[in-house]
Amino acid sequence: MEVKARAPGKIILSGEHAVVHGSTAVAASIDLYTYVSIQVHPSTENDDRLTLQLKDMALAFSWPIGRIKEPLSSLGGPFPSTPTSCSTASMKLILALVEEQNIPEAKISLASGVTAFLWLYTSILGFKPATVVVTSELPLGSGLGSSAALCVAFSAALLACSDSVNVDMKQQGWLIVGESELELLNKWAFEGEKLIHGKPSGIDNTVSTYGNMIKFRSGNLTRIKSSMPLKMLITNTKVGRNTKALVAGVSERTLRHPDAMNSVFNAVDSIGKELANVIQTPAPDDLSLNAKEEKLEELMEMNQGLLQCMGVSHASIETVLRTTLKYKLASKLTGAGGGGCVLTLLPTLLSGTIVDKVISELESCGFQCLIAGIGGNGAEICFGASS
Amino acid sequence: MEVKARAPGKIILSGEHAVVHGSTAVAASIDLYTYVSIQVHPSTENDDRLTLQLKDMALAFSWPIGRIKEPLSSLGGPFPSTPTSCSTASMKLILALVEEQNIPEAKISLASGVTAFLWLYTSILGFKPATVVVTSELPLGSGLGSSAALCVAFSAALLACSDSVNVDMKQQGWLIVGESELELLNKWAFEGEKLIHGKPSGIDNTVSTYGNMIKFRSGNLTRIKSSMPLKMLITNTKVGRNTKALVAGVSERTLRHPDAMNSVFNAVDSIGKELANVIQTPAPDDLSLNAKEEKLEELMEMNQGLLQCMGVSHASIETVLRTTLKYKLASKLTGAGGGGCVLTLLPTLLSGTIVDKVISELESCGFQCLIAGIGGNGAEICFGASS
Repeated sequence: MEVKARAPGKIILSGEHAVVHGSTAVAASIDLYTYVSIQVHPSTENDDRLTLQLKDMALAFSWPIGRIKEPLSSLGGPFPSTPTSCSTASMKLILALVEEQNIPEAKISLASGVTAFLWLYTSILGFKPATVVVTSELPLGSGLGSSAALCVAFSAALLACSDSVNVDMKQQGWLIVGESELELLNKWAFEGEKLIHGKPSGIDNTVSTYGNMIKFRSGNLTRIKSSMPLKMLITNTKVGRNTKALVAGVSERTLRHPDAMNSVFNAVDSIGKELANVIQTPAPDDLSLNAKEEKLEELMEMNQGLLQCMGVSHASIETVLRTTLKYKLASKLTGAGGGGCVLTLLPTLLSGTIVDKVISELESCGFQCLIAGIGGNGAEICFGASS
Repeated sequence: MEVKARAPGKIILSGEHAVVHGSTAVAASIDLYTYVSIQVHPSTENDDRLTLQLKDMALAFSWPIGRIKEPLSSLGGPFPSTPTSCSTASMKLILALVEEQNIPEAKISLASGVTAFLWLYTSILGFKPATVVVTSELPLGSGLGSSAALCVAFSAALLACSDSVNVDMKQQGWLIVGESELELLNKWAFEGEKLIHGKPSGIDNTVSTYGNMIKFRSGNLTRIKSSMPLKMLITNTKVGRNTKALVAGVSERTLRHPDAMNSVFNAVDSIGKELANVIQTPAPDDLSLNAKEEKLEELMEMNQGLLQCMGVSHASIETVLRTTLKYKLASKLTGAGGGGCVLTLLPTLLSGTIVDKVISELESCGFQCLIAGIGGNGAEICFGASS
């Protein structure tokens, strides 16, 4: 039987960096997904294998089940209903399994994702032979939560295979997962994220699991429901950046200019709260929808100015801003800055011709453009033929 | 006898716009001047004229002294030691004298400057025949205080002719004017500025009169003395802007987002205070001079981000920022924004080759580049042959 799962990426609508200093931030899911399909094979005597295919990169990794079972049998899985952290000892054993696959040097950043896969697979499904196929609409390592979407999609598909998820398997198409199952898969996904990121904030996997939007401040997450359609152009500058160095840079600037920077963080906090309000308040007609879009554009522009004030912009981001400004569109960087992705709000009444023009101008600068609906569903699963 | 005067332009180092909402701002003189030379002619019976030559524009205006004296005799000048405001009645009479000069339509913005000239001339020197020549290194209407420099230079030259200024006429070269005379000429220049701007803040004429730097907040001006050499590249985007609309735009944004904007103004206030501190603290060696320059660059970058947050940037300004960022130079808009001028700090150790490269790249965008020392002398006068 084939089980599929998909999990969305995320954007930070407001508050990146400032959230580290106590400001409100707002994150939202985007309708760009990572897909995981699992085909569990009937067990045979000799030829049982676990295979992981990363289709987008034309890479495949494969282990004889015995090769995995031998070192990892101590893990004691399957224990899908009680997520645990990966011990240092298990981690070492898994890393050895990953290493023997000889991942090409240029793709070595995938190793941590493969590690998370092996950990989640054996922990949730134990040692069943299977073929797992991954595809994704999310660019990797550009701040759109690709690793969290991967961990959520893995967890969702694995839990569905383990029968821990309670859905009607006869239903067609993508199925929303129930609340208690979402909580379980979010916990597993977080454990996977830890193997990739060390100390993840938990924001990315939570947004990818539950979808919609999340307001967070000082470690408290509040799920909020958008009451307006929202579409963004996401421009991937393809400029790699060092998130840790950028976060440290903001902290150093805060030490040098405490008064000014604390006022800046207060401003970001106000913007986050206001943005959450605008998004949650129902718009009874088109007129008020346009007014709300204009408010969001203004808040995005303000947040971008404050991010520039924190010193996390980049020449590539400025190029995107300058280009979209020509078309009177509001943009802000999303995530760590210093490259990465830039959001541009696409108002409901904006003509497709303008969108095409902006995109072709941005692509001519070497950037990658994606259009995404904001605040859609989180993790979903699908049995048999996919939609 | 020929009397010359020169008065510098100004830049806003930090705090534009936010100053309207109670934040600290810092303005400084630049070593780009407006020059006024006055040659008073011996009075004859018939051919007495007052002539104003605007050399840079190859324009000249000339009135028979009788034509001026007849309507303006009621002014009661000369009264150089007690500056008064121009009454509405006098204003009308002067406007008629300006109108009959048929200023070309394309240069009609000069009319208010000619009006201020006639008012200052007759108020301070009465009805002596003379030839007055104006030249300037300051681009007009681009936020560098060209009109204030004009009024200060007029007032300085006129007061020197009227013997109200107490200097040793046998000295050679440019002479600094004494404190009490500066106060007098600043008052006259302010009256002139009123005829050009309606309700000037008094900042521009005060900086042009006294030179160096001025910290101001809620209408209180404090003169501060820079203790470091400071050089800026001033890029004139040549994009005209509507200062009143920009100021109103910031106020409207403040009404829409009071919490966020008030935090932004607080941040600008902290930046202004810190900037004034850095500039005033003596740097005992090169190392600390470099450290101070880096601090100023960071404060400029932060202020620019906050100005973008206020919504007063412009595509042309972004182009300048992007260009200077490539050379790791810090820039901010100066003045109203929405076009106008952009400041780029030129550190002491920056090579001339880099400066040349930046300038040629900016000029290829159609911008005008000026290099200026910051915080030099204010109004100065010179008798006979000029330096």
